[in-house]
Amino acid sequence: MRKKKLIAAVLMGLVVAGAVFAQDEWTIENALDMVWLFLGAALVFIMQVGFALVETGLTRAKNATNIVMKNLMDFCFGAVVYWAIGWGLMYGADALGGLVGTSDFFKNIMDDPGYYRDWFFQVVFAATAATIVSGAMAERTRFKSYLLYTCFISAFIYPISGHWVWGGGWLSELGFHDFAGSTVVHSVGGWAALMGALVLGPRVGKYVKCADGKVSVRAFPGHSMPLAMTGVFLLWFGWYGFNGASTLSGSSPDIARVCVTTTLAAASGTIGALFTSWVWFKKPDASMSMNGALAGLVSITAPCGVVSPAASIVIGLVGGILVVLSVEFIDKVLKIDDPVGASSVHLTCGIWGTLAVGIWGNVEGVAVGALHGGGAAQLGVQALGVVSVGAWAAITSLVLFLIIKATVGLRVNQKEELQGLDITEHKADAYAGFQIFSNT
Amino acid sequence: MRKKKLIAAVLMGLVVAGAVFAQDEWTIENALDMVWLFLGAALVFIMQVGFALVETGLTRAKNATNIVMKNLMDFCFGAVVYWAIGWGLMYGADALGGLVGTSDFFKNIMDDPGYYRDWFFQVVFAATAATIVSGAMAERTRFKSYLLYTCFISAFIYPISGHWVWGGGWLSELGFHDFAGSTVVHSVGGWAALMGALVLGPRVGKYVKCADGKVSVRAFPGHSMPLAMTGVFLLWFGWYGFNGASTLSGSSPDIARVCVTTTLAAASGTIGALFTSWVWFKKPDASMSMNGALAGLVSITAPCGVVSPAASIVIGLVGGILVVLSVEFIDKVLKIDDPVGASSVHLTCGIWGTLAVGIWGNVEGVAVGALHGGGAAQLGVQALGVVSVGAWAAITSLVLFLIIKATVGLRVNQKEELQGLDITEHKADAYAGFQIFSNT
Amino acid sequence: MRKKKLIAAVLMGLVVAGAVFAQDEWTIENALDMVWLFLGAALVFIMQVGFALVETGLTRAKNATNIVMKNLMDFCFGAVVYWAIGWGLMYGADALGGLVGTSDFFKNIMDDPGYYRDWFFQVVFAATAATIVSGAMAERTRFKSYLLYTCFISAFIYPISGHWVWGGGWLSELGFHDFAGSTVVHSVGGWAALMGALVLGPRVGKYVKCADGKVSVRAFPGHSMPLAMTGVFLLWFGWYGFNGASTLSGSSPDIARVCVTTTLAAASGTIGALFTSWVWFKKPDASMSMNGALAGLVSITAPCGVVSPAASIVIGLVGGILVVLSVEFIDKVLKIDDPVGASSVHLTCGIWGTLAVGIWGNVEGVAVGALHGGGAAQLGVQALGVVSVGAWAAITSLVLFLIIKATVGLRVNQKEELQGLDITEHKADAYAGFQIFSNT
Repeated sequence: MRKKKLIAAVLMGLVVAGAVFAQDEWTIENALDMVWLFLGAALVFIMQVGFALVETGLTRAKNATNIVMKNLMDFCFGAVVYWAIGWGLMYGADALGGLVGTSDFFKNIMDDPGYYRDWFFQVVFAATAATIVSGAMAERTRFKSYLLYTCFISAFIYPISGHWVWGGGWLSELGFHDFAGSTVVHSVGGWAALMGALVLGPRVGKYVKCADGKVSVRAFPGHSMPLAMTGVFLLWFGWYGFNGASTLSGSSPDIARVCVTTTLAAASGTIGALFTSWVWFKKPDASMSMNGALAGLVSITAPCGVVSPAASIVIGLVGGILVVLSVEFIDKVLKIDDPVGASSVHLTCGIWGTLAVGIWGNVEGVAVGALHGGGAAQLGVQALGVVSVGAWAAITSLVLFLIIKATVGLRVNQKEELQGLDITEHKADAYAGFQIFSNT
Repeated sequence: MRKKKLIAAVLMGLVVAGAVFAQDEWTIENALDMVWLFLGAALVFIMQVGFALVETGLTRAKNATNIVMKNLMDFCFGAVVYWAIGWGLMYGADALGGLVGTSDFFKNIMDDPGYYRDWFFQVVFAATAATIVSGAMAERTRFKSYLLYTCFISAFIYPISGHWVWGGGWLSELGFHDFAGSTVVHSVGGWAALMGALVLGPRVGKYVKCADGKVSVRAFPGHSMPLAMTGVFLLWFGWYGFNGASTLSGSSPDIARVCVTTTLAAASGTIGALFTSWVWFKKPDASMSMNGALAGLVSITAPCGVVSPAASIVIGLVGGILVVLSVEFIDKVLKIDDPVGASSVHLTCGIWGTLAVGIWGNVEGVAVGALHGGGAAQLGVQALGVVSVGAWAAITSLVLFLIIKATVGLRVNQKEELQGLDITEHKADAYAGFQIFSNT
Repeated sequence: MRKKKLIAAVLMGLVVAGAVFAQDEWTIENALDMVWLFLGAALVFIMQVGFALVETGLTRAKNATNIVMKNLMDFCFGAVVYWAIGWGLMYGADALGGLVGTSDFFKNIMDDPGYYRDWFFQVVFAATAATIVSGAMAERTRFKSYLLYTCFISAFIYPISGHWVWGGGWLSELGFHDFAGSTVVHSVGGWAALMGALVLGPRVGKYVKCADGKVSVRAFPGHSMPLAMTGVFLLWFGWYGFNGASTLSGSSPDIARVCVTTTLAAASGTIGALFTSWVWFKKPDASMSMNGALAGLVSITAPCGVVSPAASIVIGLVGGILVVLSVEFIDKVLKIDDPVGASSVHLTCGIWGTLAVGIWGNVEGVAVGALHGGGAAQLGVQALGVVSVGAWAAITSLVLFLIIKATVGLRVNQKEELQGLDITEHKADAYAGFQIFSNT
């Protein structure tokens, strides 16, 4: 979809509707697209504070300043490097047969509203991929090392696989469909989150070997459920821009379908996680329910434009169940310490949502979903995208974190971790004046 | 208004502008309507977190997780049942002479952008009516019973009276005017809130009989004024979508009037409650001022499209004074324990705003308001709507709560209530690590 | 309006393309402008809660209710007086050779969508100027005195200098360029903030004379970094409306440039303040970084429509460095106690941003910036605007605060200040139930 538009603009050098305009050709349709993408991007921007609040609320008070600082900084550093480098790798002139973009670095012209508009809409997606990781690496990562990581994912990791799908690269040529980024954004962020948590190792006291040789798994409860829930609602709100404005056109009637499927999948994802936790843990768990809402949203992100309301309810529901299973699996079986469940929400459900296109999808009037009589071809392409983008994101982020660990160091020392990163990294309490129990 | 559109589509089977489109007839005006209603609905969605924060902030820390969970769940369950059942009862083909809609249940088609668009805009209104109730029933309602209630109001209670006014039913035939829902949304939620609080009974320790036979009324202060105020601002922000996009058309110049009257009424409502509390209680009370802002907003919701700026200031001011009187009356005289004043804000001011149309209204160029020389006819119709919708909502919600009480039970036991619902219902503190005083 | 549309559809059985208007001059371009300015104004409105949270988070828990109340009230009182008086002074018929507007007070007509639309967009700017001040005067100002101040700035001070620039007054005649209000809004609020803090004097215990005659400067840490950061993100989000919709037209391709320059300047401002604090104070300071984001945003507000991406990065970066220097200078050298750094953010960076137009600006195709070969003429006009608007705002607000101080009094007494304004002014704790240390 996006790909075709960009290929047309780049390869043929034509002034194409939706890509590059001289100002006097700025029609009312162009104007509506501009307003639509601007407001959609602003909605996606608000997801930054949604992530900040979910991650802060679900972790401990002694690290609250550190987390919100990381969330602020990944947007700020990400925006500058995505302007300088990332945009060119993702949407520059294609090279190496669909592997990478190679032009438009440090793009600095005064009159190209099409470029400006598209850059603004894309930078907030890049920042979303980057910020997913901060939750998984919470409570033990050195601040300056996090800044290094975030520059690399926004400048190189995210844009290159993004080029494959949205920049006219090889996966788009094969017909891979990812409407708003279950794979392009969420799985990439989710893989980096999982690799980051793996390389960092668990928080002090998380997995304790008992006398009988068994490992006891400790839960660290979050310090503010109201802030976490506020974050969930703000993420959901912002997701309407994330999915809705991914039509890239304010004149597309598909906007209407996207908002319905997004709403229903988020709702059913919440319900799925609520009941799964209720049956399994004998309580309607708050943090699982919140992750269920996000799970439904991640799951519907790829298929939101190409499935029916009933299918969206099923996709969300499965996502909500999957996220609980995944959190338990990563925590109890893999014993990787992801404090907020970011890898389960964004990676597990990102994969699920991408595959769902191949199960229920109806792309531009053609039933491609396996359960819609479309055969297995689309499902195969979707799986190929999941595996190839996943391999790219997992390997590059693993190497990145290993290099950072071996050079400047990735983790604070144990004393700093126990004291809390707010004091040791930023020399400021998050909640001056409040009596807060030492919570190891 | 909306009714005629639907009647036209349904009875004559015509493709009418604004209701059902084939995609190739999707004009730029259709596109602007889509963008407008999409963004308006997203703004209304943000009111969910506004309600969550107001209600959490104005109640005690030990119930904070429970409240935000209820606010999340009433949207999620509400969205699914409103898709399955509610939409059909509200906007389906009219039956029984304007009493109920009877088609379009579980509506699951791929290509009907008009339906998708309208459903998204309507579901957020349904969720608003449902979520009003959670505040009035805070701090003592069993979680699973609340889920039952919320399914019923979104599936049956709200849609049926909604059909009367916005779905082409009998009240719309009589000329009842409720632009954005002072009655359709707020009074319905307000009646259910009052009935819920009544059936539940007051919180432990709220009304204590003293030695002299008098009843001492205790106030339980809220645990976070900053969160409550954040909720008020987010509700106000979302209300611009609630009132503004109720034009149902992005091409309507009435949008302009709506935003001015909404702003001025909210401002004067706040000022009215501030001074009333200052004179009466000798202090500029924060929670009353916040309720004053909401009172102004509820009051202007019905008349926002049909009154002048000066009238909107008066409507808001009276709403702000009324809400203080109503809170005191319900608390001290009726002795119904509504922890956040939801019934005063939404019911009392919902009634006031609906009547205000008959006092100052100028509907489509015709002065119908009694003080504008329009006689008493419109005022009579407005009163009829208030009474009939009120009777429906009060009786059905009363019966619903009594049935829930008699079967699964509506209220936690006293020990659970004293301990707080976060621990007893969800097994998690809202503020792990913080020292919080036992506050009864 | 709707009625006519529907009558057309129903009675004539015609398919009407989405719009029939009584004001038949209301074109689709007018409609898009309306939607754009409405949503832009709603975004600016959300900045009110952004200010409330930044100011609350960066001050002490014992004054939290008082601050959020002041932020609510300055919008409410401001809206009413700006409708009654301010609008007429700013946009009424020009008098005295460009000095003041003199018509349209208490404007109360039913059918003027252009007026309604413009008023709504302007009132949120007026409220922004007013609310800047509450942070600088935090923790010691009498509530009723603050209400007096806020009525005066919204009714008189802001509108009159606003007339000079945006109302067709003498500065606009000279070619002074302030796209979205670095001077018109932020410097005016910043001057009033500085004058308010000066007249009030420092908080008890802020500057203590030691035995050796030196003055020890005490820092009062803020009580909630997560709330403060939430405020920063919401301000940034709202700033997209502040700058973006200042095109005043939804059909302007300039919207595209504005969103890119706004994003990059905010990002580089954050980075500038982060590194400045890191080098200077040996820590990546959270409150400085947050002020850096706001500094970048204030700095780009005047030039956002007329500079390139690279220039916007430089403008933001310098703003981020300047804000740290300015905070230290005002606090340590001038010894004026501005608890949240409001005057540094809005005044210092407001001046810088206004001058930046004369350095890098390219106004409507003409390179006016000194570094773009435009000579010093524009820079001179920009400086003239800074000085003249600054003199007006500084003198009038100084006189206003001195009069309030001499009559009703401006400051609470020392005992009240030590106890906290929540209890003494509003008789309510902000955080009932929480254990909060006496923090002087």
